[in-house]
Amino acid sequence: MTTRDWAVRFDLQHTDGATLARAGVMHTPHGAVATPVFCPVGTQATVKAITPRELHELQASMILGNTYHLYLRPGAELIAELGGLHRFMGWDGPILTDSGGFQVFSLEGLRRIGDDGVVFRSHIDGSLHTFTPELVVDIQEKLGSDIAMVLDECAEPHDYDYLAGAMERTHRWAERCLAAHRRPDQSLFGIVQGGIHQDLLRASAEAIGSMGFAGHAIGGLSVGESKADMLRILDFVTPLLPADRPRYLMGVGSPEDLVEGVARGVDIFDCVLPTRLARNGAVFTPEGRLNLRNAVHRDDPRPIQEDCTCYTCQHFSRAYLRHLIVAQEMLAARLNTLHNLHFLLDLMRRMRVAILAGEMEAFREEFWERYQVANAEARELNRSRWNSRARRDGANDVATSRGDGDSTR
Amino acid sequence: MTTRDWAVRFDLQHTDGATLARAGVMHTPHGAVATPVFCPVGTQATVKAITPRELHELQASMILGNTYHLYLRPGAELIAELGGLHRFMGWDGPILTDSGGFQVFSLEGLRRIGDDGVVFRSHIDGSLHTFTPELVVDIQEKLGSDIAMVLDECAEPHDYDYLAGAMERTHRWAERCLAAHRRPDQSLFGIVQGGIHQDLLRASAEAIGSMGFAGHAIGGLSVGESKADMLRILDFVTPLLPADRPRYLMGVGSPEDLVEGVARGVDIFDCVLPTRLARNGAVFTPEGRLNLRNAVHRDDPRPIQEDCTCYTCQHFSRAYLRHLIVAQEMLAARLNTLHNLHFLLDLMRRMRVAILAGEMEAFREEFWERYQVANAEARELNRSRWNSRARRDGANDVATSRGDGDSTR
Repeated sequence: MTTRDWAVRFDLQHTDGATLARAGVMHTPHGAVATPVFCPVGTQATVKAITPRELHELQASMILGNTYHLYLRPGAELIAELGGLHRFMGWDGPILTDSGGFQVFSLEGLRRIGDDGVVFRSHIDGSLHTFTPELVVDIQEKLGSDIAMVLDECAEPHDYDYLAGAMERTHRWAERCLAAHRRPDQSLFGIVQGGIHQDLLRASAEAIGSMGFAGHAIGGLSVGESKADMLRILDFVTPLLPADRPRYLMGVGSPEDLVEGVARGVDIFDCVLPTRLARNGAVFTPEGRLNLRNAVHRDDPRPIQEDCTCYTCQHFSRAYLRHLIVAQEMLAARLNTLHNLHFLLDLMRRMRVAILAGEMEAFREEFWERYQVANAEARELNRSRWNSRARRDGANDVATSRGDGDSTR
Repeated sequence: MTTRDWAVRFDLQHTDGATLARAGVMHTPHGAVATPVFCPVGTQATVKAITPRELHELQASMILGNTYHLYLRPGAELIAELGGLHRFMGWDGPILTDSGGFQVFSLEGLRRIGDDGVVFRSHIDGSLHTFTPELVVDIQEKLGSDIAMVLDECAEPHDYDYLAGAMERTHRWAERCLAAHRRPDQSLFGIVQGGIHQDLLRASAEAIGSMGFAGHAIGGLSVGESKADMLRILDFVTPLLPADRPRYLMGVGSPEDLVEGVARGVDIFDCVLPTRLARNGAVFTPEGRLNLRNAVHRDDPRPIQEDCTCYTCQHFSRAYLRHLIVAQEMLAARLNTLHNLHFLLDLMRRMRVAILAGEMEAFREEFWERYQVANAEARELNRSRWNSRARRDGANDVATSRGDGDSTR
C-alpha cells in the first residue's frame, strides 16, 4: 500500500443514523468543498453556456474537466503553457478531471485495448492516439486539476468474464497511475469497477480501497444498467469503500439519483444531465421534469418553479422561455442551464443541512412525496432529440461524461 | 401637420463647433437615454446570447425589438397578454421597435406591394400575411415599445424611378401611421427614404420632417450602397432633419460608421453587427477587427484588448476564446458579444464626453490614427461564414436588421 500525504483532505463531519448519508468538508488547494456535492461538468474547459462568475453565484464549489477532450483540443501542453486549466478557463475553485477512460471506451470504431493502455481514434479528426496510465496522469498534471482520476476500463456491465479481466487491468493501471503521479498539489482518486457483480465489486473495492488513494470512485454505474441494479449495487459497494475518504459516484445527476446516492453514503457526484437537458428545453421542478418546448407553456406567465430563487425564475416566464426555445435563441440554453444547476446545487445544500440535523430520512420522504421520475418515453425522447441536435450542430458524438439513462452513450 | 405631445422628449445639450456632432438626453417612459447612443438589437425579444442583467451592466440604455419577427413569433397578442415586450423579455429600460418594413422588403420570393400595404410570406412557415401602416402601428402598440417606427418601403438604392414611387408611398404610409397611432406612452418616429438621390432625399426629409414625428430616421442607407455614398448622403440629409428632434440612422453599427455618423449629427444608431460578428468569432479593437478563429491566436495569453474593462477582457485570453470557438462552445458567442457591445457602447460614451468638451474633431482624428477598417475580403468572409452558419442552424435567412456591409441582405 502506498502511503501518501494528499493535498486533498477530507473531514467527515456527520454520518446520518437512519440512512448512510454523510456530511463533510473536502479541503483542496483551490478551496473547501462541502459534501455531499454535485459537480457541474465543464468537458471542454467550459460548463456549457455558463461563465465562471455565474458558477460562483450558483455557489458551485467544484467542477469537472475532461482529460480526453482537453488532450485532443486544445492540448494539455497549451493549457499548461497558459498557466493550467484554472487560469485558462478563469475558474479559481476546485477542479476534478476525469481520466478519459470512459470517453475512450465509449468511442465507436477502431480501438485496441492491451495491458499497456488503449489505442483509439480521435472523434474530431480520426487520428490515432494511445492512452496509458502514465500518460493520463501526465496530462492531468499538466492540466493542474485538484483531483485527478486513474485510467480505468469501463466495460459492458453484463459480460462477466470480460468484466473480470477489465477489472484486473483497471487495478494494475491504478497501481501504475499511483507510481507515476508526482504533482504535490494534485490528489489522485482510484476507481472501482466490476459491473453489477457483487464478487467483482467486492474484490475491486478491496483492491482499490487498499492502495491509499485520496478518494474512491464507483466508475461502472450509470452506464446502461437499470435504476434498480444501480441502487442495489450502491447499497452493496458503498460501505466497502474506506469511510475516511470521499466517495464519488461518477456520471450520476438526476435529482432522484442524487437523493438515493446521498442516502447510501456517496459524497461526490457529477453529470452532464442538468446542462444537457437544459439545452434541450427540459428543466427540473420539485414535481419532476418539465419540457418547456410543449405547447401547454405557450402563454404561461409563471416561472419554472414558483419558490425558486435562481435568476431565471426571478425574471422570466415559462411562456418567454418556450418562445426562446422555439425561436432557437441561445438565451434559452443559458437560462434553463442556470435553473437546472441551481436546482441540483440547492438540492445538495438542503440535503447537507438535513444530514447535519439528523433528518435525511424525512428529507428523502418529502422529496419522494412530490417528485415524479421522468418516464422512459420522456427519457428516450430527450435522448433522440439530443442526438439529432448533436448531429446538426456537427458536435461531438463521443460521450462527454459518464452518463445516466440520458447519456448519449 | 400633426401637432402632438409625444411621451419621448429630446433635450439637445450641446452641438459641436468643428463637426455637426450633438449631445443630448432623450426622456422616455422607461428612462433617460443619453445621446449619441448605440442600441443593441434584440430581434426576437432577446439580444442574442445576452441577459437583461448583462445589458444593464454594459450600461446599454435603449435596445431594439422587431415587429416583423415578434408578430410572426410568438405573436403580438401573446406578448400583450403577458404584459408587453418589456415585461415579456425582462428588460425595464427603453425599447425601440422597427416597423418590419425593412424585413418584409428583404424577403425573397412572393410578395406584392400595393398602396394599401405589402403582402409577404413568413420565412418560418411560408404563410401569407399583409402589413398595412395601420397594422404595424397596432402591433407596436401591443408590444408597448417606447418608440415605434412607421411602415416604410426600403427600395433598391440605384433605381431612381422606382425609388421615387416608393418614397411617395412611404410618405402616404407615414401619414396613415400617424393617424392610426393612439398609445400615449409610445412615440412614433418617421423614416426618410430616397436612396442616394439628393432631390428625393430633400423631398423626403421635408415631407417627413414636417409631419410632427417625435423623431426622424434615415432608413434607406446601409443597404448595399458604398461607404462613400453613405457618408455623402449623411452630409447632405442630416442637416435637413429638424434639429430639435432625435435623428436616427438605422442599421449602422461599425465603429468607423458610428464615429462618422456622430460627426454628421446623428443621435441614434442600431445594428446587429457587433452581436453577429461576435457569434462568428470577430471582435472589435481600437486597431480594427480581429478574427479570433485565426491560428495566430492559438497560444496568445493576452485579452482581446489590453485596456478593456469588459468581463471578457478582464478574465479570458485570446487563446481561450479561440479554443471555445474551435470547440463550438456557446460561451464563445457570449464572451465575444459582451466585448463587442462593450466596445461600441464605450465608444459612444467617449464620443459624448468629447462632444460636451468640444473635442469631437480631436476624438475623430485619434480614432482614425489607430483604427483600420476591415477590408472587403474580411467582410465577404464574415458574410459567407455567417450565411453558411445560418443555414446549418436552420436559422432565419431574412435580414434581422437594417444592416451595414456585413448584413445578410
